[in-house]
Amino acid sequence: MKVFTGNANPEFAKKVVNYLNIPLGNCEISRFADGEVQVSIKENVRGSDVFIIQSTCNPVNENYMELFILMDAMKRASVREITLVMPYYGYSRQDRKAEPRAPISARCVADLCQVAGSKRLLVVDLHAPQIQGFFNGPVDNLFAFPVMAEAWQNKKSSIKDIVCVSPDAGAVERTRAFAEKIKSPIAVIDKRRDRPNEAKAFHIIGDVQNKTALIIDDMIDTAGTLCVAVNNLIEHGAKEVYAIVTHAVFSGPALERIEKSHLKEVWVTDTIPIKQKSHKVHRVSVAPLVAEAMKRIHSKGSVSALF
Amino acid sequence: MKVFTGNANPEFAKKVVNYLNIPLGNCEISRFADGEVQVSIKENVRGSDVFIIQSTCNPVNENYMELFILMDAMKRASVREITLVMPYYGYSRQDRKAEPRAPISARCVADLCQVAGSKRLLVVDLHAPQIQGFFNGPVDNLFAFPVMAEAWQNKKSSIKDIVCVSPDAGAVERTRAFAEKIKSPIAVIDKRRDRPNEAKAFHIIGDVQNKTALIIDDMIDTAGTLCVAVNNLIEHGAKEVYAIVTHAVFSGPALERIEKSHLKEVWVTDTIPIKQKSHKVHRVSVAPLVAEAMKRIHSKGSVSALF
Amino acid sequence: MKVFTGNANPEFAKKVVNYLNIPLGNCEISRFADGEVQVSIKENVRGSDVFIIQSTCNPVNENYMELFILMDAMKRASVREITLVMPYYGYSRQDRKAEPRAPISARCVADLCQVAGSKRLLVVDLHAPQIQGFFNGPVDNLFAFPVMAEAWQNKKSSIKDIVCVSPDAGAVERTRAFAEKIKSPIAVIDKRRDRPNEAKAFHIIGDVQNKTALIIDDMIDTAGTLCVAVNNLIEHGAKEVYAIVTHAVFSGPALERIEKSHLKEVWVTDTIPIKQKSHKVHRVSVAPLVAEAMKRIHSKGSVSALF
Amino acid sequence: MKVFTGNANPEFAKKVVNYLNIPLGNCEISRFADGEVQVSIKENVRGSDVFIIQSTCNPVNENYMELFILMDAMKRASVREITLVMPYYGYSRQDRKAEPRAPISARCVADLCQVAGSKRLLVVDLHAPQIQGFFNGPVDNLFAFPVMAEAWQNKKSSIKDIVCVSPDAGAVERTRAFAEKIKSPIAVIDKRRDRPNEAKAFHIIGDVQNKTALIIDDMIDTAGTLCVAVNNLIEHGAKEVYAIVTHAVFSGPALERIEKSHLKEVWVTDTIPIKQKSHKVHRVSVAPLVAEAMKRIHSKGSVSALF
Amino acid sequence: MKVFTGNANPEFAKKVVNYLNIPLGNCEISRFADGEVQVSIKENVRGSDVFIIQSTCNPVNENYMELFILMDAMKRASVREITLVMPYYGYSRQDRKAEPRAPISARCVADLCQVAGSKRLLVVDLHAPQIQGFFNGPVDNLFAFPVMAEAWQNKKSSIKDIVCVSPDAGAVERTRAFAEKIKSPIAVIDKRRDRPNEAKAFHIIGDVQNKTALIIDDMIDTAGTLCVAVNNLIEHGAKEVYAIVTHAVFSGPALERIEKSHLKEVWVTDTIPIKQKSHKVHRVSVAPLVAEAMKRIHSKGSVSALF
Amino acid sequence: MKVFTGNANPEFAKKVVNYLNIPLGNCEISRFADGEVQVSIKENVRGSDVFIIQSTCNPVNENYMELFILMDAMKRASVREITLVMPYYGYSRQDRKAEPRAPISARCVADLCQVAGSKRLLVVDLHAPQIQGFFNGPVDNLFAFPVMAEAWQNKKSSIKDIVCVSPDAGAVERTRAFAEKIKSPIAVIDKRRDRPNEAKAFHIIGDVQNKTALIIDDMIDTAGTLCVAVNNLIEHGAKEVYAIVTHAVFSGPALERIEKSHLKEVWVTDTIPIKQKSHKVHRVSVAPLVAEAMKRIHSKGSVSALF
Repeated sequence: MKVFTGNANPEFAKKVVNYLNIPLGNCEISRFADGEVQVSIKENVRGSDVFIIQSTCNPVNENYMELFILMDAMKRASVREITLVMPYYGYSRQDRKAEPRAPISARCVADLCQVAGSKRLLVVDLHAPQIQGFFNGPVDNLFAFPVMAEAWQNKKSSIKDIVCVSPDAGAVERTRAFAEKIKSPIAVIDKRRDRPNEAKAFHIIGDVQNKTALIIDDMIDTAGTLCVAVNNLIEHGAKEVYAIVTHAVFSGPALERIEKSHLKEVWVTDTIPIKQKSHKVHRVSVAPLVAEAMKRIHSKGSVSALF
Repeated sequence: MKVFTGNANPEFAKKVVNYLNIPLGNCEISRFADGEVQVSIKENVRGSDVFIIQSTCNPVNENYMELFILMDAMKRASVREITLVMPYYGYSRQDRKAEPRAPISARCVADLCQVAGSKRLLVVDLHAPQIQGFFNGPVDNLFAFPVMAEAWQNKKSSIKDIVCVSPDAGAVERTRAFAEKIKSPIAVIDKRRDRPNEAKAFHIIGDVQNKTALIIDDMIDTAGTLCVAVNNLIEHGAKEVYAIVTHAVFSGPALERIEKSHLKEVWVTDTIPIKQKSHKVHRVSVAPLVAEAMKRIHSKGSVSALF
Repeated sequence: MKVFTGNANPEFAKKVVNYLNIPLGNCEISRFADGEVQVSIKENVRGSDVFIIQSTCNPVNENYMELFILMDAMKRASVREITLVMPYYGYSRQDRKAEPRAPISARCVADLCQVAGSKRLLVVDLHAPQIQGFFNGPVDNLFAFPVMAEAWQNKKSSIKDIVCVSPDAGAVERTRAFAEKIKSPIAVIDKRRDRPNEAKAFHIIGDVQNKTALIIDDMIDTAGTLCVAVNNLIEHGAKEVYAIVTHAVFSGPALERIEKSHLKEVWVTDTIPIKQKSHKVHRVSVAPLVAEAMKRIHSKGSVSALF
Repeated sequence: MKVFTGNANPEFAKKVVNYLNIPLGNCEISRFADGEVQVSIKENVRGSDVFIIQSTCNPVNENYMELFILMDAMKRASVREITLVMPYYGYSRQDRKAEPRAPISARCVADLCQVAGSKRLLVVDLHAPQIQGFFNGPVDNLFAFPVMAEAWQNKKSSIKDIVCVSPDAGAVERTRAFAEKIKSPIAVIDKRRDRPNEAKAFHIIGDVQNKTALIIDDMIDTAGTLCVAVNNLIEHGAKEVYAIVTHAVFSGPALERIEKSHLKEVWVTDTIPIKQKSHKVHRVSVAPLVAEAMKRIHSKGSVSALF
Repeated sequence: MKVFTGNANPEFAKKVVNYLNIPLGNCEISRFADGEVQVSIKENVRGSDVFIIQSTCNPVNENYMELFILMDAMKRASVREITLVMPYYGYSRQDRKAEPRAPISARCVADLCQVAGSKRLLVVDLHAPQIQGFFNGPVDNLFAFPVMAEAWQNKKSSIKDIVCVSPDAGAVERTRAFAEKIKSPIAVIDKRRDRPNEAKAFHIIGDVQNKTALIIDDMIDTAGTLCVAVNNLIEHGAKEVYAIVTHAVFSGPALERIEKSHLKEVWVTDTIPIKQKSHKVHRVSVAPLVAEAMKRIHSKGSVSALF
Repeated sequence: MKVFTGNANPEFAKKVVNYLNIPLGNCEISRFADGEVQVSIKENVRGSDVFIIQSTCNPVNENYMELFILMDAMKRASVREITLVMPYYGYSRQDRKAEPRAPISARCVADLCQVAGSKRLLVVDLHAPQIQGFFNGPVDNLFAFPVMAEAWQNKKSSIKDIVCVSPDAGAVERTRAFAEKIKSPIAVIDKRRDRPNEAKAFHIIGDVQNKTALIIDDMIDTAGTLCVAVNNLIEHGAKEVYAIVTHAVFSGPALERIEKSHLKEVWVTDTIPIKQKSHKVHRVSVAPLVAEAMKRIHSKGSVSALF
C-alpha cells in the first residue's frame, strides 16, 4: 500500500498518511515552463496497491490533468491497482443534460479517470448518488455527517433548541441524516413560484422560531443563495444561524458574503483547502475517516461498516 | 428507416408507425418450448436505420431479454444503426447504491443494451435525469407533460381553481413544469419525521382548500403512497383529486386501490399497456410525440425543438 | 472464496457448499412488486473470489437477469473476481445463424455475462464445444458422463448386453465416451430423408436386437423425438430402453410423454431442478464434481486432471 | 466501393473485379529484406467502403499478417468501413478446446481481424457455423454447393444412379443440401469403434452398390481419410467415385494420393489457389457468387436471397 | 460540416471558416464561478460532421479539459463524427518514458481525446511522427514548411547565400525539407560532449561563413537554446540569423530573450496565439492549409495530395 | 512464475531459465500439415504468472502468429497474467506513417499482442522509445549497452585510442551512452545532401584519425549502409573498425557483406539466433540481463535500478 498525492490538497494527504502511520509516496508533480504537468515518481511502485489522493477542486482542470498524467505514470510503472481518492469530486453538479446539447461532465471525467488507469474510487459526500453509476467499477461514497455531528456535539453541547434546515428539496436527505444524529427536528426551505410569472419565494416549512438553525448542505459555492436563506431564517424568527457543509468550494465572493451575513459560524470539512482565512469558518477534518476507509479497502474489510 | 417492436407494447408501436405512415417491420418474436426467446426477422434490414420499440415494463426481465436478443439479430443482419425506443425504462429506480453492496441496476441494463447493439436511446420521462449519463451515446429524454397538459385543457377546461400537487420532494420539478403549462399554482406534500422516532407525517405545503388537486408524478407502482396522499388532500379540504402520471406501472393491488380511493380520475400515458380495465383510468397517447422524435432523429432534425 | 446462488437451483448450490464445507454466501434475491430483480448481499465480499451458481434454465430470462444484476452488485462491492458457475447454459442451442437474420443468442448472453462482470465460466456438458470460443476468458466445461457411468455401474451391474445409442449425428461423441466407460458397443440413430420429398426415416445403425439400449444425450427438452426413438428401438428388437441425459430441461409435455413411453427409466443430473415428480426419472448429482472443480479453480489446481 | 487483394489468391480477386466491372484497388504488398510485410496503397481511399479479399490458406500465417497490416493501413487512411472477404478461413478447424489448455485459434484470429479494423466478414462454407459467433459484427457465410451442383449437372447430366456420400457425421448437412439440388439419395460413412479396443471401422450407411458415389465435404487437407473412404466405397460396390469439395487445402501428399487413388475426379472451387496441376482436379469458380454478395452488401441488398 | 472552436485560438478558427466560407458553429464555452468548464451549443448538430478546432497550447490543461467536455456534449448531441483539429498538440514532447516511472503524456492525452469522442485527428507539424501511432484512428499530420517557404520567397527574394540550419539532430529532417523548397544548402548544430565530463559543445557542421542562416525547428519554448545557437552561428561568421519555426510556444522569458538576441527575425505560424507583441516576430498563417485539409476530409479527397 | 518459449529463439529461453534456475515450461509448438500453428501446453498453468519469450525476428510473421495463438491458449488456461518477453521487437521500424496511407505496423502488432492476452512487455533496445507508448500497459525497455561495454572492456582492454561512431543522427544517443561507459569520445556520420540534387555524402564529424572506431547501432539488417560507413571511416584514417550492435537481423547478403568488408569484428547480442556462422561475428549474451529483469518483475523489484 502506497499513498501519493497531487497538488490539489497535500495537507489532507499528510493527515491521511499520519493516521495510517506510513510515509507519503515520494513523487514530484510540477509544471514545465509551458504549463504542462511534469510527474516524477521517485520510488519503486511495481506491484503496489496505489492510492492517489486528489480533490478536483479549483483549479479543477489543472487538478484533473495532474491526476490523469500521474495515473498514466503509475500504470506504466506497473502498479497492481490504482484507487483514486477524490475527497471532492469536481464537475459533480454537471450530472445530467440540464438543457439541450449540454455535456454530462460528471460522466465525462469518470470516463477519463477510468481510461487513465483508475479501478476504484473513494469519495466524500457525492453531490448526486447516481454518479456512482457513472463508474464501471466500485465507488465508495463516505458520509461526512457523522463526523460533523460528533464535532458539533463536542463543541456546542450547550446549545439547545436546534432545528436542522435543508436549504432546498435536494438536500433534505442529508439534513435528515444529520438531524437524526443530533436528535433535532428539521425544516425545509422551498424556493418556488407559486403562480407563473411570480418571483420565486422562500417558504420555510417547519418551525424555526427562537431556535438555533443549522443549514445542512453538501457544498457552498458562491454562498449567494445561502445568505438569502440565512436572512429568511432570521426574518422567520430564528435565534441564530449556522451552516454545516461538507465541501468548502468558496468561489469568488463566497467568504466576503459569509463575513457580511448573519451567519454565526460556517462548519466545513477539509476536503478542499481554504486559502483565505475567516474567523467564521471552522474546519472539521474528515482525513481520519478517509484514511480508515483506505485501510479497510486495502485489508479487504467492510467500508459500509464504518457507518 | 425501419421500425420494429418487441412484445412489450405492440399497440404503441402500431400507433407510431401509423403516425409515420410506414409499415411495421416484419419480425416474429416468440418463445421456444423451454422459454427461450425466438427471433425471426422476415425482411432485409441490411444498411437500415433501425428503431426498436420496447417498453421494459413488467414482465421486465422477459422484455429486456427480448430486446438484447433482437438487437443481436439486427446487428448480425448488418443494420447501419439501432436506436432503442424505450418509452418506459425498466429498473430506472435502481439508479444508485441505496444500501451497501446494492446493484446499480439502471446502469447495468444500460451496459447490456449497449453491448447488445444499441447506439442511441429514446425514452419518455426518465425517473432520474442522471440515467442519461449511464449511456455512452446520445439519449433523448422526451417530456410527456405538454401532451398531458394539452389533453387536460381540451377535456377539462370547465374546471377552475386547480392546484398541482407534487407527492414528494423528487417530483417538484415535474409538477412545476405541468403547472406552468396549465397556469396553476402548486403545492408539495412532504413526508417526513419532524422529530426522531415519530411516524412520518404528511405535510401539505401550499393551499389546497376547495380546489381541484392534480397530483403529478412520473409513475404509479402499487399506488399505496398515492392513495394515502389523496386522503390527506381530501382531509385538507381539496374538493376533488386527480392524478396525472406518465408511466402506468400498476403493480399488484394498484388498480384495486385506485378504484377504492377518493381519486376522481387517473390520467396516464400509453407507454405501458394496461391489461385490466378501470373506468377511472384515462389514457393519453404519447405515441405521436415519440413518432415525431423518431422522425427528427432519422432526418437529423432537432428533438429539443419539440419542447 | 465465497459461493453465492441465484434462485434458479438453490438445492444444487447447497450441495456444492456442503461438499466444500463452507457456508453459502448470505444474499437475498427477490422481486419488487413490478417484477424487477432485488438483490441484497448481506456480508462483506470486498477482495473475495466469488463463485456465483446459477443454472440458466426455465424461467431462463428471469434467471439470466438475476445473474446480471447480482454480478453488477458484486462488481460494485469490490470483489476480486467472479467465476460464473452455470451448470446448465441457457440459449446454448442458438449457437449459430440457423437461418437468415437469426440471432446467435448463445454469443449474445456470453457478451452480457462478461459485461456484467464475469471473468471465468464453469459449465457442465456444453451443447456445442465451440461456445467456449464465445467467451474471451477461460471456460471450464465439465463432463457429466463419468459420474453417470459410475452411478449406472453401481446400480445396474446385473444388466448385461448393453448397447449405447446416439439419438442423432450430433451426440455420437458423447455416446462413445459413455460407452467406453461402461465397455459397451454403440449404435446410432440417423434421421434422414434418403430421397427428396420422402419423410424422414429413423435408421438404426448397429445391433440392438435383444439388448438393453441406453440412449445418451446432453438434454431432453420436450421429449418428442426421444419417444419416437424409443419406439424405433423397441421395434428393432431392443429388450428395454433407458435414457441417460445430462440436462433435464423437460419442457411442456416432456414428463407426460416419458411416463407414457416404453422408456424404462430416465437418468438425469441435477443441473436443472425438476418440479414435477416422476417415478421413471432418476437423478444423479454432479454437485460434487462441480464443487471439486471450483475447489481446484480456487486453489489453482488442474481441472482437466479431473477427467 | 473499392476492392483490394492481398497476395494469397490474387487470381480470385481479379475474377471478382471483372464480374463487378471495376478496377482492382491499386496497392502493393511485398516484403522487406527481413521478411516484414510492406504495404503501399497507391490511391486515395478516404471515405470508401473497402473490401479486402484474402484467403487465409497456406502460407496461413503470412496471409493473416498481410491482412492485419493492410487493414491497419486502410484504417489509418480514413476508409469508411472494411469488409473482409475471406473465401477460405484459416484456423477454422481450431474452433474449440479439443484438449486441455488448447487455444481456440479460430476465435483468436477473429479477435485479431476485428482489432485490426474489420467490421464485417464474408466467407464461403465456414467449417463450423458457430464460428459466425466468434465475430461481434455481421458474418455472411456463402454456400458453394448450389454453384457446384449446377456445374455438375451441366457437365455430367449423362451420369444416372448417383448417391451423395457424407464422409463422416460432420458433413451430413452439407451432403444433404447438395443431394437435394441434384435429386439424389445420400449415404453416410461412419468411422467408429463398435467395441472398445477395436480398430475404427468404416461403416457405409445407405446403398452405394453399382452407383456413382459423390463424396461431399468442405475441405480436403492431406486427403488421407478421403482415399481410405474411396477404397471402402469401391469395396462396397460403388461403380465410380468423385469428390466434390469446397476448399482445396491440398497439404503435403494430398495431390499425389488423389492421383494414385480410385477417385475419378475431384471437383473443387477456387477459394484456394492450386500450385501443382493434376488432370483429376476440376475447378468451379465461386468468384461470381462472392462478387454478387459483395455487390449486395455494398448496395444494401439481401445476401440470403442469393440462396 | 460544422466547425466549432474552443477558447485556445479563436482567431485561427475564424480564419478557417472564412476560407471555407461557412459560419463558425454557434457555441459558448465559459467557466462557472468555481472554474469548471461550461459548454452551451446553440444550434442543432444532430447527424453533422463536426470539426472542433483547439490548439492545446498554454493554458494547456484548461484547453484540454475544454476539449474533452465539448466533445462529450457533441457526442451526446448525436453528431455523426468528430474530427479534432489540433494545430498545436500539447504534451507532444512527453512521447516516451524519458526516465524510470515517467508518464507518456502524449499517449495519455491521445487516449483521453478518443474516449471523449474524437474519431480523427488533424494536426500541424507533430513533434514526433510516432505520435500518429498513439491514436487508433486516422491522423493527418500537415507540414507547415511549404507555406513558410513560399512566404519567405515572396518577402525575402533579395537575400542570397542562405544556409538552413538544424539546431539539433532531431530537426535535420525538417531542415532538409525546408532547404529543398528554397534550394539552399544545410548545416547542423550538434551539441555533444566529445569526452565524458566535458561541457556540451556546439559544433556547427557545414559552412555558415558570410551566409544568412535560417534556423529551422518545430517549436520555440523558452528560446534559451535557440539564443545560444544564434550566438554560435554569429561567432562562426554567419552574416545574419533568422529562425523559422512552426509553433510559437514562447514560454516565460522567450520573447525577451529573442528581443535581446542577435536574431534578425523570427518567423512563426499562427497555430498558437501570441499575447505579447514583438517587432521581431513575423507570423505566417497556416489557417488556409488547415482549412483546405478539412475540406478534403469532408469531401473525401486526398489530404496527402496537398504536399 | 513459469517461463515458456516459442520457436523463434529457444536457445535464448534456455539461457534465461538456467539463470533463473527453474525448468522451461512444458509446451510444444509445431505446425499442422497445412502450416497452421499447433500449440500443446503440457502442464497446469492455472493462476500462474507466465512469461513468454519470443523474439519476433525472421520469420517474423510465423513468430508473431505463434505468439498470438500461444497467448490465446494461456489465457483460456486461466493464467494469472502474461508478460511478453520480446528481446527483438519485429516491425519496430514501421513506427509512423512514412508516406501517405502507410500502416503503422509497430502499433498494429502492439494491439494484436494486447488483444491476444499480453498485459506487460519486456524488450531490449527498442528501435524508437515512442513504441512504449503504443502499449496501454507497462513496457520495460532494457539497454544492452552496459553488458556490451563490459564485455568489450574485458576482452579488449589493450586497445587504446578508441572513438565511438554513430552511423547516423538517430543513433547518437545510443553511441553516447556506450562511449560514456568505456570513456571514449564520439564521432557522428551524417549522410546528407548539402545541396538539392546532389548525391548524399558521408560527413564524419569528430576525429577518427589513427583511432579504433566502434560503430554503435541498434540493429544490422542488410549491412549495406554499414559497410559504406566502414569504408568512409577507413578513408578518413581510422586504424580499424568494429561494429557493436544489439540486434543481429542479418537479412539477405548481410553476413557476406560483413565478411568482405574492412570490419574487423562485429559484436552482437543473442536476441536473434544466427543460422550462418562467421568468424567475424562475436556474440554477447543479454539473457542474464533479461532473466534478472524477469526476476524483478516477478518479485516486484525495480527494473530501472538495473541501470
